Amino acid sequence: MKDKQPSVSHDRLLHYLQELYQAAGLSAADADVCAQCTVKTNLWGVDSHGVLRTPVYIERILKKAINPTPEITYEANAEGPFSLMNGDGGMGYVVATRAMEAAIEKARRFGIGIVLVKNSNHFGAASLFTRMASDVGMLGAAVTNVKPNIGMPGAKAPVTGNNPLALAAPIGQPYPFSLDISMSAVSGGKILLAQKKGEKIPDTWAIDADGNPTDDPFKGFAGILLPTGMHKGLGLSFFIDIITGVMSGGPFLQDLKSMYKHADEPSLTSHLLMAIDPAMFQSRESYEERIAAWAAMIKATPMTDPSKKQIIPGEIEYMIEQTRKAEGIPIPPELIMDLTALEERLGLSEHLPVNE
Amino acid sequence: MKDKQPSVSHDRLLHYLQELYQAAGLSAADADVCAQCTVKTNLWGVDSHGVLRTPVYIERILKKAINPTPEITYEANAEGPFSLMNGDGGMGYVVATRAMEAAIEKARRFGIGIVLVKNSNHFGAASLFTRMASDVGMLGAAVTNVKPNIGMPGAKAPVTGNNPLALAAPIGQPYPFSLDISMSAVSGGKILLAQKKGEKIPDTWAIDADGNPTDDPFKGFAGILLPTGMHKGLGLSFFIDIITGVMSGGPFLQDLKSMYKHADEPSLTSHLLMAIDPAMFQSRESYEERIAAWAAMIKATPMTDPSKKQIIPGEIEYMIEQTRKAEGIPIPPELIMDLTALEERLGLSEHLPVNE
Repeated sequence: MKDKQPSVSHDRLLHYLQELYQAAGLSAADADVCAQCTVKTNLWGVDSHGVLRTPVYIERILKKAINPTPEITYEANAEGPFSLMNGDGGMGYVVATRAMEAAIEKARRFGIGIVLVKNSNHFGAASLFTRMASDVGMLGAAVTNVKPNIGMPGAKAPVTGNNPLALAAPIGQPYPFSLDISMSAVSGGKILLAQKKGEKIPDTWAIDADGNPTDDPFKGFAGILLPTGMHKGLGLSFFIDIITGVMSGGPFLQDLKSMYKHADEPSLTSHLLMAIDPAMFQSRESYEERIAAWAAMIKATPMTDPSKKQIIPGEIEYMIEQTRKAEGIPIPPELIMDLTALEERLGLSEHLPVNE
Repeated sequence: MKDKQPSVSHDRLLHYLQELYQAAGLSAADADVCAQCTVKTNLWGVDSHGVLRTPVYIERILKKAINPTPEITYEANAEGPFSLMNGDGGMGYVVATRAMEAAIEKARRFGIGIVLVKNSNHFGAASLFTRMASDVGMLGAAVTNVKPNIGMPGAKAPVTGNNPLALAAPIGQPYPFSLDISMSAVSGGKILLAQKKGEKIPDTWAIDADGNPTDDPFKGFAGILLPTGMHKGLGLSFFIDIITGVMSGGPFLQDLKSMYKHADEPSLTSHLLMAIDPAMFQSRESYEERIAAWAAMIKATPMTDPSKKQIIPGEIEYMIEQTRKAEGIPIPPELIMDLTALEERLGLSEHLPVNE
């Protein structure tokens, strides 16, 4: 009884989501991309970015805030190592997947491939795309801009987004090195949790709505999230916004829209997807030998508790994936209700296969 | 009397350092690069990486731990957007300057240019090189690996370096956007300062030598620095080590050497320098207009104190530069003694022009 929540097997959830996205108007191929992205994210334990987001994505597709049948094209420099792609307002999953496929092809030719994307939407967990690179033996990087939601002490409004950054690398383990971080110190969810527990929050998490330091989770949640590492996270977020929104020709900073507050409008998000061949300057065997030594060196770190080992980013996600492949993906009851309502609205014959 | 320290005018310091580096065996051109890099760093107020490092660099040159006359060559893919350069054990300033010059040339042709560097040494402040890019209207990125000096709670030894990252972009202001951060929460110097002041340190700064949390600045300084944002900074450091040391064929993690503890040996540091043309997908005028709007939007952030404005990274360095160009660069008395000793040893006719 360690898990009292209802759950769904990952392969049945995959099939269900394919049907759902197709019923919402996506092609079979694009619906498959969306389903795969969602299920992977939940298998890694990143529930904040998995099936929890499906209802809002489907709503946005039905309202045409997300274009269900985008024509994704190169806008510039199609043949070079660095291209601009127009996502035509499509699903972020679909657009970013296409862009990373292109970046990987470029990296095979040039050692590096970068695809900058404009006119896209929320793409879920950034590591979905960097892991496409590590799956084929490459390094991957992915960033996106989002509407402003972080600020510094002394500011009465958010100045920039928590603009996520993901990085991945094959390291000769059953899992890749995979880092997926946002530029806020913590997520809003973590402050809500402190509210529920009746705990104070560290003064590095948030400021109140007037820009003053606070340890009160209610004032913090009503206020502004602080950047991770203060000026460090702020600066990283700024640069991500420049290299995505400013450079792509899309909106940036306050001109970006929230997919929640502006449910009827395309987000016009810009992403940048990069792939690098780590074996470009040595044989593949040499890279594999060296990166295995790198991982082994990390694992050899002497620990306070000798029964423990230093964790490598990506390792925890792998362990959760093993468990969830065996035991299913937990689904909160409210989400079941939302999905059931969508099924009915779309006239779907299939139902969410909970606990089957 | 706001500044009781002795000081040196920046142009006289520049000339003095040119003479000093040349006397130590560098060519006139390379000595000029070293002097320029040093003086710029001090003008920005980054005194930890300015002339304070000159004695150790010169010592290392005299011991041939740093090669005074390196033959810096491409090792692979010289003509492509992404090349490997061999620094031949030269001064980090000289090698990284050469590499960024090459990256900028590549970016003019391909939109992006990356030069990975092996066999280099400590290169000072990473923003020295990213600002070369922003000076010519490009985005710049620079990273380097360094010997392990950060670790996570539960580890009894550092696992990876605080591997610095710098990013720059021209933003239509008298200063570029310029971020230069390391992956530790704070520098060791900040913990020493807490010791002197008799203050406790936050538990996010360091762990003791056994891997346990501590608020004691003595235990923290004798222990291990924590990463900025914990797993966030750790993961960024790991990726920087992969993309520099592992990928270049150079040493990584524990195989890297400290320039202090291994004063007689080359550090064999690897760097990666990247330049990107931000106007690749739009006219230069359009980029300039958009980035000016971006900076203006940041400056329009409503502030708790309406007389203040949101700071952009790079702005503080610019303000310090104006002051120091007028009032000189402060030099600690101990450093004057170290430099004077070097002058004598090298038979330099010129003396450090303090307060002249």
